Amino acid sequence: MAENGARKIRLGMVGGGKGAFIGYVHRVASRIDGDYDLVAGALSSRPEVARESGKNLGLAEDRIYTSYEEMARAEAAREDGIEAVSIVTPNHMHFGPAKAFLEAGINVICDKPITATLEDARKLLEIQPKNGAKFLLTHNYTGYPLVRQAREMVASGALGTIRVVQVEYPQDWLTEPVEQSGNAPGAEWRTDPARSGAGGAIGDIGTHAYNLARFVTGLKTEAVAADLTAFVPGRKLDDNVHIMLRFEGGARGMLWASQVAPGNENGLQLRVYGDKGGLEWRQDNPNYMWFTEFGKPKQLLTRGGSISVPPAASMNIRIPSGHPEGYLEAFATLYSQFASVIRGDGAEYEALLPSMADGVEGMQFITASVQSSNNESRWTRLSEV
Amino acid sequence: MAENGARKIRLGMVGGGKGAFIGYVHRVASRIDGDYDLVAGALSSRPEVARESGKNLGLAEDRIYTSYEEMARAEAAREDGIEAVSIVTPNHMHFGPAKAFLEAGINVICDKPITATLEDARKLLEIQPKNGAKFLLTHNYTGYPLVRQAREMVASGALGTIRVVQVEYPQDWLTEPVEQSGNAPGAEWRTDPARSGAGGAIGDIGTHAYNLARFVTGLKTEAVAADLTAFVPGRKLDDNVHIMLRFEGGARGMLWASQVAPGNENGLQLRVYGDKGGLEWRQDNPNYMWFTEFGKPKQLLTRGGSISVPPAASMNIRIPSGHPEGYLEAFATLYSQFASVIRGDGAEYEALLPSMADGVEGMQFITASVQSSNNESRWTRLSEV
Amino acid sequence: MAENGARKIRLGMVGGGKGAFIGYVHRVASRIDGDYDLVAGALSSRPEVARESGKNLGLAEDRIYTSYEEMARAEAAREDGIEAVSIVTPNHMHFGPAKAFLEAGINVICDKPITATLEDARKLLEIQPKNGAKFLLTHNYTGYPLVRQAREMVASGALGTIRVVQVEYPQDWLTEPVEQSGNAPGAEWRTDPARSGAGGAIGDIGTHAYNLARFVTGLKTEAVAADLTAFVPGRKLDDNVHIMLRFEGGARGMLWASQVAPGNENGLQLRVYGDKGGLEWRQDNPNYMWFTEFGKPKQLLTRGGSISVPPAASMNIRIPSGHPEGYLEAFATLYSQFASVIRGDGAEYEALLPSMADGVEGMQFITASVQSSNNESRWTRLSEV
Amino acid sequence: MAENGARKIRLGMVGGGKGAFIGYVHRVASRIDGDYDLVAGALSSRPEVARESGKNLGLAEDRIYTSYEEMARAEAAREDGIEAVSIVTPNHMHFGPAKAFLEAGINVICDKPITATLEDARKLLEIQPKNGAKFLLTHNYTGYPLVRQAREMVASGALGTIRVVQVEYPQDWLTEPVEQSGNAPGAEWRTDPARSGAGGAIGDIGTHAYNLARFVTGLKTEAVAADLTAFVPGRKLDDNVHIMLRFEGGARGMLWASQVAPGNENGLQLRVYGDKGGLEWRQDNPNYMWFTEFGKPKQLLTRGGSISVPPAASMNIRIPSGHPEGYLEAFATLYSQFASVIRGDGAEYEALLPSMADGVEGMQFITASVQSSNNESRWTRLSEV
Repeated sequence: MAENGARKIRLGMVGGGKGAFIGYVHRVASRIDGDYDLVAGALSSRPEVARESGKNLGLAEDRIYTSYEEMARAEAAREDGIEAVSIVTPNHMHFGPAKAFLEAGINVICDKPITATLEDARKLLEIQPKNGAKFLLTHNYTGYPLVRQAREMVASGALGTIRVVQVEYPQDWLTEPVEQSGNAPGAEWRTDPARSGAGGAIGDIGTHAYNLARFVTGLKTEAVAADLTAFVPGRKLDDNVHIMLRFEGGARGMLWASQVAPGNENGLQLRVYGDKGGLEWRQDNPNYMWFTEFGKPKQLLTRGGSISVPPAASMNIRIPSGHPEGYLEAFATLYSQFASVIRGDGAEYEALLPSMADGVEGMQFITASVQSSNNESRWTRLSEV
Repeated sequence: MAENGARKIRLGMVGGGKGAFIGYVHRVASRIDGDYDLVAGALSSRPEVARESGKNLGLAEDRIYTSYEEMARAEAAREDGIEAVSIVTPNHMHFGPAKAFLEAGINVICDKPITATLEDARKLLEIQPKNGAKFLLTHNYTGYPLVRQAREMVASGALGTIRVVQVEYPQDWLTEPVEQSGNAPGAEWRTDPARSGAGGAIGDIGTHAYNLARFVTGLKTEAVAADLTAFVPGRKLDDNVHIMLRFEGGARGMLWASQVAPGNENGLQLRVYGDKGGLEWRQDNPNYMWFTEFGKPKQLLTRGGSISVPPAASMNIRIPSGHPEGYLEAFATLYSQFASVIRGDGAEYEALLPSMADGVEGMQFITASVQSSNNESRWTRLSEV
Repeated sequence: MAENGARKIRLGMVGGGKGAFIGYVHRVASRIDGDYDLVAGALSSRPEVARESGKNLGLAEDRIYTSYEEMARAEAAREDGIEAVSIVTPNHMHFGPAKAFLEAGINVICDKPITATLEDARKLLEIQPKNGAKFLLTHNYTGYPLVRQAREMVASGALGTIRVVQVEYPQDWLTEPVEQSGNAPGAEWRTDPARSGAGGAIGDIGTHAYNLARFVTGLKTEAVAADLTAFVPGRKLDDNVHIMLRFEGGARGMLWASQVAPGNENGLQLRVYGDKGGLEWRQDNPNYMWFTEFGKPKQLLTRGGSISVPPAASMNIRIPSGHPEGYLEAFATLYSQFASVIRGDGAEYEALLPSMADGVEGMQFITASVQSSNNESRWTRLSEV
Repeated sequence: MAENGARKIRLGMVGGGKGAFIGYVHRVASRIDGDYDLVAGALSSRPEVARESGKNLGLAEDRIYTSYEEMARAEAAREDGIEAVSIVTPNHMHFGPAKAFLEAGINVICDKPITATLEDARKLLEIQPKNGAKFLLTHNYTGYPLVRQAREMVASGALGTIRVVQVEYPQDWLTEPVEQSGNAPGAEWRTDPARSGAGGAIGDIGTHAYNLARFVTGLKTEAVAADLTAFVPGRKLDDNVHIMLRFEGGARGMLWASQVAPGNENGLQLRVYGDKGGLEWRQDNPNYMWFTEFGKPKQLLTRGGSISVPPAASMNIRIPSGHPEGYLEAFATLYSQFASVIRGDGAEYEALLPSMADGVEGMQFITASVQSSNNESRWTRLSEV
């Protein structure tokens, strides 16, 4: 059973075979709180890899699949079939599995971005999930306790009316043309329009930054003015993203995402300023958040530590403040709370967990930004695309 | 199966019933890498709590025990009996279970300090474990990747001959007499000599700091000069620890541990200086470590990131640098590597994992410090006690 | 004499009477290295303030002026007349004095921005200074030793070809409409188009950020796309500045300046990324700078400390690393090096010290940004305005 | 005149010739606020150096001396003689000049430690200064605004009863035997008992750390248990200092000073914890101070910024918060406030400025620590020595 005494959810996985980073992350996330049992998988499109990977993970022979269609069909037919599936394939392989499993009545946990194209994302919205199957998009940064806290603080008015939102996600791993080396598959598909869609850095990390700002502030984006660049010679997709944002109600923002900024590993950072106060949070040291009430000293809030405001109801804190939690725990919170939703006792999480609608909005953001960038950075409304 | 394809170890737990912090931590640690299945437990000395806790964790009725003796006997007799047990009771309840399970041929994972008294620790050393059952002491901070890296760097001579070791572990949660409030059981037993032993802060956190310094530097302590204080009126054990250290070979150190230092949550910090360089690491931001080669700029090493020295062979890195790992992952590394030891394929970890001998040394450290403090801070050799 | 044994320069001041912040700063800056003697002043347009302030500063009665025209005339006529004058009035009062003193053959040290309008700045360029009188614009941040170091590192190719430049200058002191309170003269003129010119935050601090990026990278700006906002109701000039930058040669940048970001005092920060490395510097802790060679650990360079690259020839380091220097010392470096220029032995500084041309470029930046912002953030070339 | 309109003090200097670091620092400190005019000096014991240095500093020929005795006599006899003298020679050359000038009725500004021996310090106490000449000991760190603020906060009870004081001053410049190189005069005299006295690191920087703790907490030290070490082969004085402290009233502390800790430039740090709160301050980023009220989030106080407590009356803040002040400004504050004392309008500063009594206490601290270290770290009372 799960740590909280609830029954475990039977889980399958599409993608995530040997050597895949994000599949591994999803598996750990599913284990941390004990809410899932991984029992089936179509872990690779290459049959031998699928089989070896499945065996390694202890899957029963007859539940190691080599195609997701087959898996959806077979698992839906079993009495003890999976109740949820994690889709951890490259972007262009999200739509097919998501459709197949939802229509088979199996809950879907899907990596971001939701699809490779806005068109696909919209088609997903039209699907009729069988038996009310649910969908979770793993914008995992929303699972950090202090991100939840930040969202509640903004909602409660602790910052006053939001004016300025600065969000950034710099990395450096694509500073050189590693995708042309032949031995960096993760770099390869992420820089390939056929598999990633029209956005490079903007789809891979820009969309995380966008979603984080959206999640915390609750502000709806009106329009973007974007300047996307591919700095590395021969690269087909953007590796640096500069965007100005206009939000409904008048707030303004900037978003910077880069994969060519030496010295930055995963420097996701959000800063939000209102007429009463400001908040600053970084994911590389995620157990701390700056909070300033205008005219008072800066306060360093800690995850679950002494605070000047009530804790966020929805945050999942596992260990005492001062003992760091990290990326995997934040990811696990999405898994654990989605397990509650699946079991029918997670109503309070539904509004918080990243949804299909968030996924579509993310694709609008990507699409509008690419259009703007192709159009001399003209202000482009998300509602136009 | 475990993430790495190895079979799972059947695990039991003594202590760790509802509301207990450290039992929960051990369970999560056992799950993260998928190496264990929790199948039995004597989770509380209070039968109802034991039963309710066991049920909540999905244990079979017949494997929920109310005494550890019974559990050791019954599990040893089962074909599918547990192969390892986690002991997560207060200090004075470590010795009995450890003896019982080791003599029953069941591997033991024991929280620190190893026992409440040095005498008990030494008796433990004399036990003949059946079938070569192994013992792991969960000095969990040694599982942090950069702590492993630090150990290897020191061993490789990157710092030259070590001269100065500064280690500290300040907290603030006992600033006020919460143990006298009647509703802080964790504070209560930790400040009670009958359950904690002769040391308060020194046993609870000082021993972690000591072990960390020992693990990283490899230096053997010759003598301590200690000044232990109980600042809070009515407190029976020390809540602040000042110690000067002399190491074999001439290095010198200082150790500070405190539970009454407002503004410190779990500020474990180690700084090591040799004649060629220095290292600095903090557990509240554990994915970063300062390394200075004398005469060159300080370098900020990151967990698994770009480094100027080869990575530590024994570190367990789960996700890319820049994505933080934390306390639970470090703890899980001990569990996972001990699982390898149990399975017989973890020879390379045996010298690294905190052992019974480390536990005895920790008790010598506590005992010598208490004696020194009672004796006008006289230099007291660990070998004297 | 000056600390270095050179003779002192006779200095006058226009503006900077009682209560004025920036005049005080200029005076301290002139004293630190001992290169100047303040001997004359038109410290206020209000005669009594001028007189009282002059007396307080020990000026001789006959060298306390109430108009800068008179001062320029009288001092130029004296045998022992001033050799340099500091102009520390509000922006719209820069042009007149600068012209008067230059035409009188007196060297000018002028606070930034150079004038209130681009037109005035250009007119200044056409002036024929008598006797080759020189002009210094106090973009004081260029005086920080590590900023000089950064400039040399970029120039030497340590970062490779520059791709991305992120610069920001957030403050919070105008979060509320203090300029409407009647007792904040500094806020009042800075938000008044008649005295500040067409830019608010962009002129006051955006231009500092712009100049800093320009100084360090050497990159020439091609065009800006700007979104300027006045968030505080009733405010006549921008208090938040979002700008995307395109540099000649293909580098891209972002500039954020804000006076309404609670929790930021003077958070000027520059980050520069090339294809070989990155640099990061903040003025609120200016004695440290991050330098990353791609693929190696981040290094924390210190002012004058152990470095992996030769020190910048032009930096003025006064005390050992680890002892912090600050804002006043950086400012003093401009004064001191300009003194060398005046004495005729500062040829190596002339290319470094902010000049009239830099001032005109700053005004182009302001003007182009305001135009862009008024024109739906259209990319606007600096050469167009 | 001084910036505040007061008349300038005529200043002389003993020591501080070409190449001397601390003499230069004193001169800058005397200039920043404009309170002094340097008009005489015995800048070196080597006549040519004295002359060249004096000329470089613009001293009149007849006020360049080659002996301090002669200087004291001659200046005391002049109508326009110096009113104060800065003594910036090595430790063993403090006593003689201090005595000579005080007995000549000239105010003395003396670098620390006050003398090379406790005996000399006590003899200084017995001197009868002519005309009430005053004495300032430049424990310059006490001039930092936030150090003043810390002192007031402790005094006001913001931290409650002080329990624990952790102070440290690590450096790394003596990691190697530079004093044996023949070209590091500063290192040479600091490691020479004949010129430094019985303490090495403890006299050079340990005494600064001690004084800082004393200044901020107001606590009187009862006894020390010290372990001093000379790590570098051939070094005659300690280069690493470990001390446990017992204060009157029951507080306890630790002091670490080191000159062999690679990666530390001037890492002076003070942490003070009481039963209501804690304070943490570092001199390498001195414009920030952590303040925690127990049970509330940590606050980052800034120099002169938004604060939760009233500002310290005696702090000298020159520029807005967010613009860093540094070491030279803190030093200048001592000079400036001593100028007020000399002029007779600085009564409020007299209790704050480091005095002869502080100097004697510092020597007691050094002497007791050396005795303790020589005596197996026995607790040694300051009143015993």
